[in-house]
Amino acid sequence: MGLILALDFGGTKLTAGVADTAVYHTHDLIWQAHKRVFSPADGNAQVDLATMAALGRELLAGERATAVGVSFGGPADYHTGVVRLSHHVAGWEETPLQQQLEGLFAAPVGIDNDANIAALGEWRFGAGQGLADLLYITVSTGVGGGWILGGRPYRGHNSMAGEIGHTAVDPDGPVCLCGKRGCVERLASGPYMAADLADALKLPENEIAGQDVAEMAAWGDEAAMLILQRGAWALGVGIGNAANLMNPERVILGGGVTKAGAAWWEKVRQTAHQTALPQVQFDIVPAALGDDAPLWGAVALVEENGN
Amino acid sequence: MGLILALDFGGTKLTAGVADTAVYHTHDLIWQAHKRVFSPADGNAQVDLATMAALGRELLAGERATAVGVSFGGPADYHTGVVRLSHHVAGWEETPLQQQLEGLFAAPVGIDNDANIAALGEWRFGAGQGLADLLYITVSTGVGGGWILGGRPYRGHNSMAGEIGHTAVDPDGPVCLCGKRGCVERLASGPYMAADLADALKLPENEIAGQDVAEMAAWGDEAAMLILQRGAWALGVGIGNAANLMNPERVILGGGVTKAGAAWWEKVRQTAHQTALPQVQFDIVPAALGDDAPLWGAVALVEENGN
Repeated sequence: MGLILALDFGGTKLTAGVADTAVYHTHDLIWQAHKRVFSPADGNAQVDLATMAALGRELLAGERATAVGVSFGGPADYHTGVVRLSHHVAGWEETPLQQQLEGLFAAPVGIDNDANIAALGEWRFGAGQGLADLLYITVSTGVGGGWILGGRPYRGHNSMAGEIGHTAVDPDGPVCLCGKRGCVERLASGPYMAADLADALKLPENEIAGQDVAEMAAWGDEAAMLILQRGAWALGVGIGNAANLMNPERVILGGGVTKAGAAWWEKVRQTAHQTALPQVQFDIVPAALGDDAPLWGAVALVEENGN
Repeated sequence: MGLILALDFGGTKLTAGVADTAVYHTHDLIWQAHKRVFSPADGNAQVDLATMAALGRELLAGERATAVGVSFGGPADYHTGVVRLSHHVAGWEETPLQQQLEGLFAAPVGIDNDANIAALGEWRFGAGQGLADLLYITVSTGVGGGWILGGRPYRGHNSMAGEIGHTAVDPDGPVCLCGKRGCVERLASGPYMAADLADALKLPENEIAGQDVAEMAAWGDEAAMLILQRGAWALGVGIGNAANLMNPERVILGGGVTKAGAAWWEKVRQTAHQTALPQVQFDIVPAALGDDAPLWGAVALVEENGN
């Protein structure tokens, strides 16, 4: 028990929070201290780490953290505590972040990638409380997932589980950055839908952002509606396939694309349940924790009863 | 420790074995007694149960079993001990098989469906020994799977996990009995491949059996080769998707279709690894236990350190 320092290394933002276990265990989820800064555009891993270290020390204000939980926005290995790389910030390759933070804060440190952390946060504090088996999916600039199975996080043989974005649902679909055709991420993520809409409207690629697709679909733009529905279909097939394979009780969706409106949710749910066998029971609900999900997940990771 | 009675309710065969824990723990996998009989064509659940009860008593020869493990060839729920139904034999609907056998043999009984049982058998005694995370798939009259995750069987929220046969891999594929297009089972199972080949050759549907497809492909029949390769492709995509989602260390394949030859295996492996992200490490190997896999899995289910 005591103060837990939670750190969220996002692609463009660095956020820290201090939570008092005696407070959030008995009251609402509130931070003793909380601060978010933008990562400098020309930054690198060293700058981010120094910024985060200063942020943590500032929020702790001379107190000692009993543990430090870390969400990393990219491939990071819970078991080794090493960051493999960041797709957004240079210089993170094979960084022993857990070890470095243990040196800086003189406390035990746990790290994991943001999708696993968000799954943990929703399970412990959000839309998945009390469930044994759940799949969390973020549908945002990418599509990634995290599992709670049998009442504990499941990460896989070499910490790569949850890559639902790169499950293939259409062999005749467009080519994904990963090289395959018809990946869920290629069809359902914000930037890919935006690029496809720009292409359909013969606009330069960066004229349209992810959130524009949903907005234009809401206005009744045919091309936007088709692309958004195709994305919802692809995600629905991915979820239905995952449900057939793993039979989770609940699928929780977070990330910017989940703000795309009722028609998007309806298509995702309908397709997922058509894809799953009728005996495979599950529901699909929105994430509950919002922007602070990674921080609360990081708290859950290093609680005494966590991991 | 002591004698374990293992029972395998197959679709057409009933098999029983008695294993002595002191023997198979220290020596090879050998049965103290073992017998297989065919299920009568006009039989039903009651006849099968009576036949199996007699078989078990005969093999035990007056000794008492310390536990009874059961593999059921159809939907059966480990947690409740209830058989949901059989797709081959009438009258199994909602049968409390565990309870009935506990009455008959005065011993604790564990039951599970054949795919989960085979996964357990391969993990404990076969091609998956010592691994924490594996997927077993039977490719036979149907396509079904069973999971070992984190060093224990994983069955899902309502015991439906493992339905890899009904994951969808091609939205333009042929329609499966489940109502969807392009299920792995629709493309990769023996009877469906045989039906497609009969259709291509304009023969009556029951002129061609599952094993004929592989044989005709080996002779160089173009239509048979295409259908077999398409089946291997579908299974490979299903395995690659499962690997991206769950990152098991090993995928083990059993069932009659896995005898289809080197070209089939090559296509399955190649497609699976192309579908999975490069960082997702796994291998695909044949099952080791052969026809007795369900019985050894049933033994593993009720061992003291089992389940």
